Amino acid sequence: MRDVGTLLEALPYIREFHGKTVVIKIGGAAMTDAGLTDDFARDIVLLKYVGMNPIVVHGGGPEITSYMERLGMEVKFVNGLRVTDQAAIDVVKMVLVGKQNKDIVLSLKGHGQPAVGLCGDDGSLFQVRKRLAPDGEDIGFVGEIERVYVDVLNHIAEDYIPVIASVGSDENGQSYNVNADEAAGAVAAAMRAYKAVFLTDVEGWRADPDDPATKISQITALETSRRLATVSGGMRPKLEACVKAIQGGVHAAHIVDGRQQHSVLLELFTDEGIGTKITPSS
Amino acid sequence: MRDVGTLLEALPYIREFHGKTVVIKIGGAAMTDAGLTDDFARDIVLLKYVGMNPIVVHGGGPEITSYMERLGMEVKFVNGLRVTDQAAIDVVKMVLVGKQNKDIVLSLKGHGQPAVGLCGDDGSLFQVRKRLAPDGEDIGFVGEIERVYVDVLNHIAEDYIPVIASVGSDENGQSYNVNADEAAGAVAAAMRAYKAVFLTDVEGWRADPDDPATKISQITALETSRRLATVSGGMRPKLEACVKAIQGGVHAAHIVDGRQQHSVLLELFTDEGIGTKITPSS
Amino acid sequence: MRDVGTLLEALPYIREFHGKTVVIKIGGAAMTDAGLTDDFARDIVLLKYVGMNPIVVHGGGPEITSYMERLGMEVKFVNGLRVTDQAAIDVVKMVLVGKQNKDIVLSLKGHGQPAVGLCGDDGSLFQVRKRLAPDGEDIGFVGEIERVYVDVLNHIAEDYIPVIASVGSDENGQSYNVNADEAAGAVAAAMRAYKAVFLTDVEGWRADPDDPATKISQITALETSRRLATVSGGMRPKLEACVKAIQGGVHAAHIVDGRQQHSVLLELFTDEGIGTKITPSS
Amino acid sequence: MRDVGTLLEALPYIREFHGKTVVIKIGGAAMTDAGLTDDFARDIVLLKYVGMNPIVVHGGGPEITSYMERLGMEVKFVNGLRVTDQAAIDVVKMVLVGKQNKDIVLSLKGHGQPAVGLCGDDGSLFQVRKRLAPDGEDIGFVGEIERVYVDVLNHIAEDYIPVIASVGSDENGQSYNVNADEAAGAVAAAMRAYKAVFLTDVEGWRADPDDPATKISQITALETSRRLATVSGGMRPKLEACVKAIQGGVHAAHIVDGRQQHSVLLELFTDEGIGTKITPSS
Amino acid sequence: MRDVGTLLEALPYIREFHGKTVVIKIGGAAMTDAGLTDDFARDIVLLKYVGMNPIVVHGGGPEITSYMERLGMEVKFVNGLRVTDQAAIDVVKMVLVGKQNKDIVLSLKGHGQPAVGLCGDDGSLFQVRKRLAPDGEDIGFVGEIERVYVDVLNHIAEDYIPVIASVGSDENGQSYNVNADEAAGAVAAAMRAYKAVFLTDVEGWRADPDDPATKISQITALETSRRLATVSGGMRPKLEACVKAIQGGVHAAHIVDGRQQHSVLLELFTDEGIGTKITPSS
Amino acid sequence: MRDVGTLLEALPYIREFHGKTVVIKIGGAAMTDAGLTDDFARDIVLLKYVGMNPIVVHGGGPEITSYMERLGMEVKFVNGLRVTDQAAIDVVKMVLVGKQNKDIVLSLKGHGQPAVGLCGDDGSLFQVRKRLAPDGEDIGFVGEIERVYVDVLNHIAEDYIPVIASVGSDENGQSYNVNADEAAGAVAAAMRAYKAVFLTDVEGWRADPDDPATKISQITALETSRRLATVSGGMRPKLEACVKAIQGGVHAAHIVDGRQQHSVLLELFTDEGIGTKITPSS
Repeated sequence: MRDVGTLLEALPYIREFHGKTVVIKIGGAAMTDAGLTDDFARDIVLLKYVGMNPIVVHGGGPEITSYMERLGMEVKFVNGLRVTDQAAIDVVKMVLVGKQNKDIVLSLKGHGQPAVGLCGDDGSLFQVRKRLAPDGEDIGFVGEIERVYVDVLNHIAEDYIPVIASVGSDENGQSYNVNADEAAGAVAAAMRAYKAVFLTDVEGWRADPDDPATKISQITALETSRRLATVSGGMRPKLEACVKAIQGGVHAAHIVDGRQQHSVLLELFTDEGIGTKITPSS
Repeated sequence: MRDVGTLLEALPYIREFHGKTVVIKIGGAAMTDAGLTDDFARDIVLLKYVGMNPIVVHGGGPEITSYMERLGMEVKFVNGLRVTDQAAIDVVKMVLVGKQNKDIVLSLKGHGQPAVGLCGDDGSLFQVRKRLAPDGEDIGFVGEIERVYVDVLNHIAEDYIPVIASVGSDENGQSYNVNADEAAGAVAAAMRAYKAVFLTDVEGWRADPDDPATKISQITALETSRRLATVSGGMRPKLEACVKAIQGGVHAAHIVDGRQQHSVLLELFTDEGIGTKITPSS
Repeated sequence: MRDVGTLLEALPYIREFHGKTVVIKIGGAAMTDAGLTDDFARDIVLLKYVGMNPIVVHGGGPEITSYMERLGMEVKFVNGLRVTDQAAIDVVKMVLVGKQNKDIVLSLKGHGQPAVGLCGDDGSLFQVRKRLAPDGEDIGFVGEIERVYVDVLNHIAEDYIPVIASVGSDENGQSYNVNADEAAGAVAAAMRAYKAVFLTDVEGWRADPDDPATKISQITALETSRRLATVSGGMRPKLEACVKAIQGGVHAAHIVDGRQQHSVLLELFTDEGIGTKITPSS
Repeated sequence: MRDVGTLLEALPYIREFHGKTVVIKIGGAAMTDAGLTDDFARDIVLLKYVGMNPIVVHGGGPEITSYMERLGMEVKFVNGLRVTDQAAIDVVKMVLVGKQNKDIVLSLKGHGQPAVGLCGDDGSLFQVRKRLAPDGEDIGFVGEIERVYVDVLNHIAEDYIPVIASVGSDENGQSYNVNADEAAGAVAAAMRAYKAVFLTDVEGWRADPDDPATKISQITALETSRRLATVSGGMRPKLEACVKAIQGGVHAAHIVDGRQQHSVLLELFTDEGIGTKITPSS
Repeated sequence: MRDVGTLLEALPYIREFHGKTVVIKIGGAAMTDAGLTDDFARDIVLLKYVGMNPIVVHGGGPEITSYMERLGMEVKFVNGLRVTDQAAIDVVKMVLVGKQNKDIVLSLKGHGQPAVGLCGDDGSLFQVRKRLAPDGEDIGFVGEIERVYVDVLNHIAEDYIPVIASVGSDENGQSYNVNADEAAGAVAAAMRAYKAVFLTDVEGWRADPDDPATKISQITALETSRRLATVSGGMRPKLEACVKAIQGGVHAAHIVDGRQQHSVLLELFTDEGIGTKITPSS
Repeated sequence: MRDVGTLLEALPYIREFHGKTVVIKIGGAAMTDAGLTDDFARDIVLLKYVGMNPIVVHGGGPEITSYMERLGMEVKFVNGLRVTDQAAIDVVKMVLVGKQNKDIVLSLKGHGQPAVGLCGDDGSLFQVRKRLAPDGEDIGFVGEIERVYVDVLNHIAEDYIPVIASVGSDENGQSYNVNADEAAGAVAAAMRAYKAVFLTDVEGWRADPDDPATKISQITALETSRRLATVSGGMRPKLEACVKAIQGGVHAAHIVDGRQQHSVLLELFTDEGIGTKITPSS
């Protein structure tokens, strides 16, 4: 240890977060860059060891597309939502649940902390229903979460780190692809988490997406809601998930840059933070 | 209910098995025929509701080959063991963990019982090491189970049905394909299960594989060991798993015909049984 | 087992009743015909083994009269209520608590399930007060239940089947004979049971007692209350107990024919039932 | 309170007995004299309130004979053992379980402590087998205890005072009369009680039964065994039960005079005691 | 034991107080007379052994003055409150926490009951703020209790007797001397104790302090509040503490004469009591 | 936080020590220099927050001498042991228990962690007997620990930091001064602690006390025992305590320089350590 005093600077945060649930949605570079993924896993294990109960939520992304193409399937998006027929949902589940989820589980295990991978079917965690594209178009088995049954999390979150793949099924057993930001927000709300953290590939929410200087450091959920209509792209579901989490009782939601090493620790263990923090009130 | 009295005939068995753990390895037709799979799930849910703690273990099979071929990979077997390179182990995990495991979980959920799908990585359930082919040939990421850590099963087996896909990893995080019969036997031994049941596509162990009339109804583990050298094909790992389970303290191991409806119930809830029963002593 | 599939038809009911308390009042032929009593005991043990918590309540009847006559006591009834002096209440308790209660306990034990016999004095289960005949006549130590203290049931109902004899005492330690239907209804209400089942010697409640064709299959508690004034004989206290149980939060009360084998199972495990079902609302 | 200091003299004993199980066999005058019975009940409630776990065991006696005579049955004894046919065992159970047991339960309740009456059938407490008269004569349903299953006592002895009537049944459900001293000794041994106390109608064990001056104040179990052959009458089963209790791990067995008020308290709460104390070693 | 019957007279009180918390403030002769202190300890241990949970609160007094004088410090009182500078508060804590508290702990241990000594700092039991003299004068580190955190008491009060020295600190870690009567009243209220008992050196509250004949035996908290303005001397903080305890939910507060042997037992275990009893309502 | 990555370097140690008990003996500059004491408290709170269960043990020292002199008592040492009469033991207890113990408790509380101060009398933690000087001289109430009753620590060590002053008493309630190093070693052994750490005013154990270059970094308990006879001064009881702790099952004992900031963290959280580490075997 170069400087043991540094450890002490984290003490007030460790104290504040002790025994609290923190839901962390991993995505973007943190999932596709093996070095960042390993760093991420080590950070999460640290959170566990200093007394928090982290829950990881993840989606899929480029790797799904790659497998679909290799299997000769058509890849098509409507309003950023993947058009998903039965063959496609099979691939989505295989890649998310059978590959990416287990990669994260193995990374956490590699840093000394057993984890348990789940999807929305396990313990009936998610109840999902079909979602149409914003214009009403039927885009197949794309779902939204109706309800989260936290019981299975309560069985394991104390002794393991739950890692949740964002797929689930409806009451007839039909599987659906679910947006991972939405899933993370719903889990955070259902668990009454202390924090929800969303990793992405920008350094936070920019008022003007093209101008890094307009990054918003802190903002209320109410003000976020007001501005939602003007936000487009992948930032929008993140912000919606943040607002929903706050409405569900979460103390703060954070959007941070997953491309930066230790971004979760920097956001949680410093006053200024590094991304955008959304709070219940100003 | 046609005949309520029939229910009472199961009472002595229900009483005997109450609170006991039963490990059931599903394979063959019971996994590939959707109707049989659904019947199987309903039977397992019944076992749960009448007070047993069933644990399901499954492997993959034809569907892995099918996906590998669609992805343009070479499919090759040595002594019945799939030659498995890194690309292949990825497909194995995706199909087993992301598809077949979740299909079983959803079937159980459809019959009213939440289940939790696991593989050997979850909760560090399996510690696996590389296995060579019998002739010493390196066939890639084919593993054998060194140790089963039952802790994660103890967290969930009371309130959920655990469904275990037979893959796992070594201490360096390298994944391996594991024979599902071996996995089921190891889980049964580690959990000190009351029963281990192996579903297959013949009606039991035949002394002469070509002669159905030579089906063995009951035999000791010792006698089974003595005859093992003469057994070939898929029956051999099943018998080895049975012997290992018995040596680990399991009260009886059963090989039953998964092609027959309700074979698990018929084997467990009748004196005569329908398959082959292997016991600690005669 | 002749037909294992039959077992599966009970699954939805087993699932519905799992972990639920069912109070069953045994009387009539089911208590006086040894064969029926043994069948009854086996049915109740089955309920226990498939996950319900049955509680049995019983009264006495002909055997009390027989012992009183052999002891040279006068046997007299007013409005169906036994005139009970101190010597009579001693005989009532001896026959109910010392003989019939233990006969049921031994039958249940004979089918593999330990039971614990109780009367209203044990664990101060019943607080009873004197009841007069409808016309105000003093008929001695005939009581009504003021309050049920369920604490002793909570100590044993999970691991044993409680069997309750319908006698109890007031605050001065004076014992009283209590109508067993009333006792069963009061226990069901106090335990917030899922079901209360009353065995009797007709096939249900007949609108016209003399016409079997007028059997009522299902009726609300409200409608039952409206018609109560017109009902006479032993059916009346049963119906009153049903209404009281429903008012106390019980989900359904059933009147079934104890002369029919497995009547409890047929009523609980079939949609149509075989007797009269009284529900909170239509 | 006349003299509050007196309370303090009991402190060392209260301390010693805290949390300990004490089995007390009531018989003789303490059961037949209503005033003594009430005193006895109050003493037992005091033991409960100052932190002990008393368990009461009782037999029957004169009242059984009285009911048998009133019912026109023949009353006959062989070597002090009641010849018991099926009609007689019914009366024994009715009087013991339905009357005397509940009288004790009500007395304890009257002093503010809920009690639970049990016999050997409840919770399968006693497993009994047939006993012949010493000369080999078949005297009917007179039994000896093969085994005590303490589970039901462990369910209730913390919150209630168990009161046990000394009847039980064999594996076929046949009931037997059991000597109450033997039952108390067996319960004390099975519960690994701290003390076993036997109330009787003499002031202790006299070396010469006819000479009160020969009362033995303290003696070892070994010496008691040596002298057993010379002891006759009702003292013998008491001494046998004391020896058996000591062999089963009980710290001391006491024979005290139930005709004396508060004899249990005087024996337990004074150094000198008032009866005969049998100890593991001198 | 001279008279075992005496023990039984305490039974109704033992029953009433079973499992209840009783806070006892020791002061005056009971603390300065070694014989009385030992008697007091024995009485408290008895309360523990018969099922109550006593909590002892104490202040200091003459011994603090003595040490201050030996250390050459000025001893000064304003309105009965000790003027306390930093050097003085050090002595107060040393004498109370390091000497008198441990003397009581050792007395209790000597009578067979382990105790745990605490002050307001342990487990952050008391949060204290500065108090001025009634005329507004700054008298140094004299504090009043803002809040009691009972958590540490809940950790130990079942298995040990907590003994609390009446000092505490504010949020900056500054220590204060706290009136022990006030501390006892605050602890009783925070623990929702059944009783609060204050030992003093008169036989109760006298309407006319100079006339023993005017001792008030029983009075309501409301009437006590009305008369408070007219009370002076050490009786006043006691009465204020009694009123506060009653307002906090305590069932009765007692002022008794600590100079009398066994005064606590006599007050608690007799109807008439020996001192002044303050009740919620008449 | 200057460098969040630094936090991660502690992860392997945090993982290793998670849930483990660490006994830390504070003495020397760490107790007498207010700044170091506050640093020490903050370090200990950090250990608690990252999942260890620290227990602090302390002695007295210069402040006792100072108070004794101010009170006009003679201060005399024999072989480094304070000659202690009854007046002196009173002062020892007052300073240790009433002042220094509470100073540490308040420092810990100031850093956000409630602590509970104890001495050997609380919960009967230490059973002490008289010790003579090495030459047999009677030096008064100087004791050695016969036995540690850890029960009270088990009540509080999970939720609070226990802070133990090294005084205790014998079976007659006589108090004794106990060497704090010995007390810490005995507590560590009795708690089967993972580590015992002794703070002192040199940088470790020097083979040649006058030559800092001879500091021993690591040594076995066996080798330490062999060299003990040659060690004099305050280092000797520390080494004896280390050996005793290791013999009692402690995994490692450390002697570190309390004059250095964060010495406990540097010793525990770095491979090389900064002082002397004594291990069960090389």
